[in-house]
Amino acid sequence: MSSSFGTLFRVTTFGESHCPSVGAVVDGCPGNLELTAEDIQVQLDRRRPGQSELTTKRDEADQVAILSGVEHGLTLGTPIALRVDNRDQRPGDYREMSQVPRPSHADFTYQEKYGIRASSGGGRASARETIGRVAAGAIAEKILHQQHGIEFVAWVSSVGTIDAADPDLASIDRSQVDASDVRCPDAAIAERMRQEILAAKDDNDSIGGVVTCLCRNVPAGWGEPIFDKLEAMLAHAMLSIPASKGFEIGSGFAGARMRGSEHNDPFVWKDDRLGTSSNYSGGIQGGISNGEDILFRVAFKPAATIGQPQTTADFNGTETEFKARGRHDPCILPRAVPVVESMAALVLVDMAMRQASRGFGQPK
Amino acid sequence: MSSSFGTLFRVTTFGESHCPSVGAVVDGCPGNLELTAEDIQVQLDRRRPGQSELTTKRDEADQVAILSGVEHGLTLGTPIALRVDNRDQRPGDYREMSQVPRPSHADFTYQEKYGIRASSGGGRASARETIGRVAAGAIAEKILHQQHGIEFVAWVSSVGTIDAADPDLASIDRSQVDASDVRCPDAAIAERMRQEILAAKDDNDSIGGVVTCLCRNVPAGWGEPIFDKLEAMLAHAMLSIPASKGFEIGSGFAGARMRGSEHNDPFVWKDDRLGTSSNYSGGIQGGISNGEDILFRVAFKPAATIGQPQTTADFNGTETEFKARGRHDPCILPRAVPVVESMAALVLVDMAMRQASRGFGQPK
Amino acid sequence: MSSSFGTLFRVTTFGESHCPSVGAVVDGCPGNLELTAEDIQVQLDRRRPGQSELTTKRDEADQVAILSGVEHGLTLGTPIALRVDNRDQRPGDYREMSQVPRPSHADFTYQEKYGIRASSGGGRASARETIGRVAAGAIAEKILHQQHGIEFVAWVSSVGTIDAADPDLASIDRSQVDASDVRCPDAAIAERMRQEILAAKDDNDSIGGVVTCLCRNVPAGWGEPIFDKLEAMLAHAMLSIPASKGFEIGSGFAGARMRGSEHNDPFVWKDDRLGTSSNYSGGIQGGISNGEDILFRVAFKPAATIGQPQTTADFNGTETEFKARGRHDPCILPRAVPVVESMAALVLVDMAMRQASRGFGQPK
Amino acid sequence: MSSSFGTLFRVTTFGESHCPSVGAVVDGCPGNLELTAEDIQVQLDRRRPGQSELTTKRDEADQVAILSGVEHGLTLGTPIALRVDNRDQRPGDYREMSQVPRPSHADFTYQEKYGIRASSGGGRASARETIGRVAAGAIAEKILHQQHGIEFVAWVSSVGTIDAADPDLASIDRSQVDASDVRCPDAAIAERMRQEILAAKDDNDSIGGVVTCLCRNVPAGWGEPIFDKLEAMLAHAMLSIPASKGFEIGSGFAGARMRGSEHNDPFVWKDDRLGTSSNYSGGIQGGISNGEDILFRVAFKPAATIGQPQTTADFNGTETEFKARGRHDPCILPRAVPVVESMAALVLVDMAMRQASRGFGQPK
Repeated sequence: MSSSFGTLFRVTTFGESHCPSVGAVVDGCPGNLELTAEDIQVQLDRRRPGQSELTTKRDEADQVAILSGVEHGLTLGTPIALRVDNRDQRPGDYREMSQVPRPSHADFTYQEKYGIRASSGGGRASARETIGRVAAGAIAEKILHQQHGIEFVAWVSSVGTIDAADPDLASIDRSQVDASDVRCPDAAIAERMRQEILAAKDDNDSIGGVVTCLCRNVPAGWGEPIFDKLEAMLAHAMLSIPASKGFEIGSGFAGARMRGSEHNDPFVWKDDRLGTSSNYSGGIQGGISNGEDILFRVAFKPAATIGQPQTTADFNGTETEFKARGRHDPCILPRAVPVVESMAALVLVDMAMRQASRGFGQPK
Repeated sequence: MSSSFGTLFRVTTFGESHCPSVGAVVDGCPGNLELTAEDIQVQLDRRRPGQSELTTKRDEADQVAILSGVEHGLTLGTPIALRVDNRDQRPGDYREMSQVPRPSHADFTYQEKYGIRASSGGGRASARETIGRVAAGAIAEKILHQQHGIEFVAWVSSVGTIDAADPDLASIDRSQVDASDVRCPDAAIAERMRQEILAAKDDNDSIGGVVTCLCRNVPAGWGEPIFDKLEAMLAHAMLSIPASKGFEIGSGFAGARMRGSEHNDPFVWKDDRLGTSSNYSGGIQGGISNGEDILFRVAFKPAATIGQPQTTADFNGTETEFKARGRHDPCILPRAVPVVESMAALVLVDMAMRQASRGFGQPK
Repeated sequence: MSSSFGTLFRVTTFGESHCPSVGAVVDGCPGNLELTAEDIQVQLDRRRPGQSELTTKRDEADQVAILSGVEHGLTLGTPIALRVDNRDQRPGDYREMSQVPRPSHADFTYQEKYGIRASSGGGRASARETIGRVAAGAIAEKILHQQHGIEFVAWVSSVGTIDAADPDLASIDRSQVDASDVRCPDAAIAERMRQEILAAKDDNDSIGGVVTCLCRNVPAGWGEPIFDKLEAMLAHAMLSIPASKGFEIGSGFAGARMRGSEHNDPFVWKDDRLGTSSNYSGGIQGGISNGEDILFRVAFKPAATIGQPQTTADFNGTETEFKARGRHDPCILPRAVPVVESMAALVLVDMAMRQASRGFGQPK
Repeated sequence: MSSSFGTLFRVTTFGESHCPSVGAVVDGCPGNLELTAEDIQVQLDRRRPGQSELTTKRDEADQVAILSGVEHGLTLGTPIALRVDNRDQRPGDYREMSQVPRPSHADFTYQEKYGIRASSGGGRASARETIGRVAAGAIAEKILHQQHGIEFVAWVSSVGTIDAADPDLASIDRSQVDASDVRCPDAAIAERMRQEILAAKDDNDSIGGVVTCLCRNVPAGWGEPIFDKLEAMLAHAMLSIPASKGFEIGSGFAGARMRGSEHNDPFVWKDDRLGTSSNYSGGIQGGISNGEDILFRVAFKPAATIGQPQTTADFNGTETEFKARGRHDPCILPRAVPVVESMAALVLVDMAMRQASRGFGQPK
């Protein structure tokens, strides 16, 4: 188990789907920053279940409590412990899974790895694990916005085979994203996605999709070559989100089909800095931010837990028909949006601090 | 700069494109393993420049010397220092770049980050940086093969818009891959790819592509949820390779277009273990290997350094026409194959050791 | 702030002296181990305030709650979050400190470092921070005892100028240590120490001392040269305990006065293993355990917060007379005993897992 | 094996006593700093063998070569690889040790840990391992001196039972220390130490001692509570040096015999900052530097390898008489001085960078 992320701004998450509490400890946050539970709650609310008919019916208010590290509304520079209690637990729903590992879920692999697994729900492989990420990410976002005006805006860019074109990157914001339950800013496409999700739900099935994420106003110079290139850390962060299957930055897989003469981003002067006239690089060159928009996409598979019957084998290898009970999302994409933003913020705040550490060594 | 990778089996690389030596220190390798320079050289030879008309003409034998950590052909459990000298240096070729940052290369971002950059070639952003990775990866591969018969086979699955179907995963091996200069095991497609690369070369241009990598015989139970999921570490490793733009595991972005009922991998009994009848998961579930083939794809952009003239700006923002000299690969894909394999091996050997560490805590 | 310790078995602590909760997250604990809150509470009870007239009167039951990572009395291999609520808070006691930094306390340095500090008590520099260490250490101890019969026994070996000789190392146990409030196993010396502490208390003063710690039944082969030698990690752990000023292993500073011919520990055969007939090495040679008793000593200064008036300067540099209010220990030594044991256990369990990780690479 | 040290300024060392090369890779050094091999050589010359009749006769020039990371005399911000070749190898001297583990040396424990050990000399447990530390430390020192005027001065403060009082801390410098072969700045005491060492040498014996180290001009605010307190990192660093047995900061073990009223350091205004009138704290309070001199002491045991015959057991447990051949130091203290300084510098530069990283998060 490796439940910590980050070198200088480090989050450690804890909690299973059916234990008393889930949460996180954020270590390395600078002192003297204004921070309240409200700053965190706003993103937790975008992540929580039961928001709409598109999401699981599990009813969790997911109210966060700050246990330490903040006094009189200011951070102390010490670890910020964050707790969210699990309330609506229904362990009985998971009886079937004691003998049959859910296809494409983590029941089998956790058992192989640890010699034991949580008896109810996904344990740590549950989406509830992402609460700690989102809570910590909200703190990271606040710092980055305050220091550099950095903004993170993610949206659902595809559901199944329904694709949305990129919105105007200069103006897109979260209110546009949240205008639909699906979290796709194109209203017409969003409605088609919504129908697609409801169709899957009606079939006791699930459906996958893609989240696109924009990081705006990131200064040039962040990212740590060789092994901790900015895109490598983003890829690490995104593939650590449950159900993610792919990551691409800038041109991504489409860029692999191009020639250098079209793909190269020419430099041009932009007001007060050297910028590029195109952005196939996705805001990163040589593992370091170049001052342009950082833009990446994350693929999510359809959720593994579905209500329709599946032919599979039990732990002993005997073929059986399996039908999951429990309350599950037909499409995790709308709720994945704040998780993607949060993980991006955790990467960037750590990189910002790593770069700031060099301030020490510079000639005076 | 973050030039170390791995928690228990840790490689630290060093060296610029035009300094005395490049290489790596491998720390954490268990003792008593047979190891010679030859074990390492075989992968370095697959990576080195000048192998064919498809690659850069820079002439480097890239002979590795083991400086420490091995005695009488056996590892001592101590750091293994590996050195490869740079020989064919032509710093004069890079005069143009002192004033003009190469479009989509790292000249600008390194300068922004460090306040300085190597005056010749790409410095650490050069492909020569991957020598240390490949040398270390060869050691990782040897251990994994010896302990579990694990095999890594990567190949070029697309160049530009020319795609190859997956070969037979049960039988594909490196000799089939190396049968063509392109390192695509499908001979007919390989020849078309070869023509595509030569066409780009003739145009003083470059072209991108995709490498697919297969990891065979990986036991179930490797990978460290939450943040160091096996696919997250692979994504981190692959996006840290110069010029990579995307990563996908198993079904990847295509999986995002599917429903759960088709995407789920049903369990079936396979001889002596529980396996799955399909493998959309790509051998990993919940961040942990499940005993099936691990299969992933890495997108590479076309190399940024091209011989044809480009309109861009110099460091002061003044528009200029830039034409790179120096010796560069029209397509880095064939040489990226051993780099991808090596990074995969570095991820897996570290995960193997992390899992073995749990052997301590188990009830007797 | 660096509130995490350990590479594979990693504890992250949180909490100030006057915030809602203190506690820890233990990540990396193997699965399937029996664990209850009682296993942890027994050491917390030895650490908690108000045990006797020798300790602070702050009244805290320090009952631990397990929030995650354990189900039906078994560890899941996932993070174990541990929470202890702060109850008896009296922030008003600390008014004096808002203008005057306590001499030899952390008020000044925290302010310098973070630009802010907890307004009440020591914040993270309070002894309450050690609750998380002790809770985590109790888990580490349990594993080590179960796997190898390893035992940790620490005791107070000096208070002020009153020294106790080492007890019989083969038989000393915690019941002997706990027979006196002072936690010195020599009853006569313990009584003299007790009087010394009460005399300091009567003077509104504090007094220092030394804790000696024995780790019994540690197998040969643990410890990670070069930089993470076993004694280096123990020194790191011990000097991280509040108020500690020194560490010595085996012969320690006395060994520096000796010649090699007397100091060397000759090898002899012991039943089923190669051992040594003397133990100036303190159970560690070359950074690696040799199978003999590990024995080390930790010096603690007298507590900085004392009730008698002190002439010092306020934050502006103006000379003033300062007299601390609040409830403080005249001698922290008795309560330091379980903290020292816990930190030793945290070091050893991590080293055990790091050594076990090599099991992977060994020839079959 | 854990051959890396530091979080942001990280050194990785490599090399055995009788392999081709020893050295280090320094990763994380900021760019644009002037650096030449000469900057490094000066400390290596103080560490190298054969300096006087007090040290081993092994003849090694220990000339350092910079392999990477520096161009035109300036650091690039990339890894700096440093190589020193082993020349005067006499593996034949070590035949005796193949069957008999040297008492109090690492032969036995390395064999137990790794299942193998270097056949000649101490392998990684040799003093030659410290070359990489000193080379890296010289770089750290240069940065710290350039940025803050920080100076590191260590000296031999005891040899056997001969103790030297502390010199004037405001004026002591390396030229005073190096005035005698022993590296004790008190000439009369130094001569007595010299005789003591030669007497041990005549007896084919060795003798221990203590090094005291002063770090001058360290600003307030460095050090990372909780677990990476500045004194904890220094203790870690010092106990990682071969043959060290103890560490104390400020008052150290003597402080454990004092009362708080005498031990507390009152605050006073000093020119432009709040300082303390005494310094029992040794420049660190609550794990964070307070702006006063950092002063600590390190105990070294007498070297284990001695020429006189010792009764011990071979690997099979059979009693035998053992007499070491080879060339060894009768007293390692004089050569330990630059190693202690180097490790202190490595700790402080890393802490400086970790503190600088907080610059990012501060309100503007």
